[in-house]
Amino acid sequence: MKDLFGSPGKVSGLVLRIGQCLFATASIAVMASSSGFYTTTAFCYLIASMGLQVLWSFGLACLDAHALRKKRDLQNQVLVSLFVVGDWVTAILTLAAACSSAGVMVLFIRDSNFCSKQIQVACGMIQISIALAFVSWFLLVVSSYVMFWILASV
Amino acid sequence: MKDLFGSPGKVSGLVLRIGQCLFATASIAVMASSSGFYTTTAFCYLIASMGLQVLWSFGLACLDAHALRKKRDLQNQVLVSLFVVGDWVTAILTLAAACSSAGVMVLFIRDSNFCSKQIQVACGMIQISIALAFVSWFLLVVSSYVMFWILASV
Repeated sequence: MKDLFGSPGKVSGLVLRIGQCLFATASIAVMASSSGFYTTTAFCYLIASMGLQVLWSFGLACLDAHALRKKRDLQNQVLVSLFVVGDWVTAILTLAAACSSAGVMVLFIRDSNFCSKQIQVACGMIQISIALAFVSWFLLVVSSYVMFWILASV
Repeated sequence: MKDLFGSPGKVSGLVLRIGQCLFATASIAVMASSSGFYTTTAFCYLIASMGLQVLWSFGLACLDAHALRKKRDLQNQVLVSLFVVGDWVTAILTLAAACSSAGVMVLFIRDSNFCSKQIQVACGMIQISIALAFVSWFLLVVSSYVMFWILASV
């Protein structure tokens, strides 16, 4: 197995997982605290998807921390295959959630002027939450490519 | 280089590319013929993104057909790297476009009952176009994974 940036059981891998977790948590917190988000399915789906990502990334961060402390090697074929599937499924769900929310936000701001008419919907906060979701997705994609590369280069 | 299903310069690769091209073209045709799509940015972006996918997949289908006729081998490192980057960029843009359109469509049908009120917007046609875009994206993802696998396993 190759020793790449972001590999499982390395410090860079742990940092990536913690980053994904933090940005996903921040996205949930900002969305949940913005008024009027619950009227739109896409924004609720973003919270659900970010929740899944927090669970997945936190679990892998714990595994990385354990492997670093006990100096264990996590790079065996079965574990990496599991990481690849989980990472890709989570990454696709996260991108889908972020993009559907962004599509609705563009409709609200640009196509219908809904945000300037309906002041009870916190459009600014929802936009920040979507941006945080995209950052979290980007960090997850880096992990996903590294995992797939490790699996393919066995 | 490995000889996988969907590899460049093989019949399976050519079939995948033709499939991507056909579904993307069908998605554009259905969306463009549905009334009222141009009022929403997400639907216009879907047409643009599907257009890019048609260009990319048609180009690669021609290359595959040429390689099959002349019995050339397309699996060298530089070409496969180019295919990987192009495939992944196109796949991410296509998924983003399909998901943002789907998010808007769910808002129209479920959250706001816009489709039952505004009969001048052809919601049924737009849904078919989005479904075709998802099928096209799925075929593109198969190509993308095969390309990445070939590149990583050199």
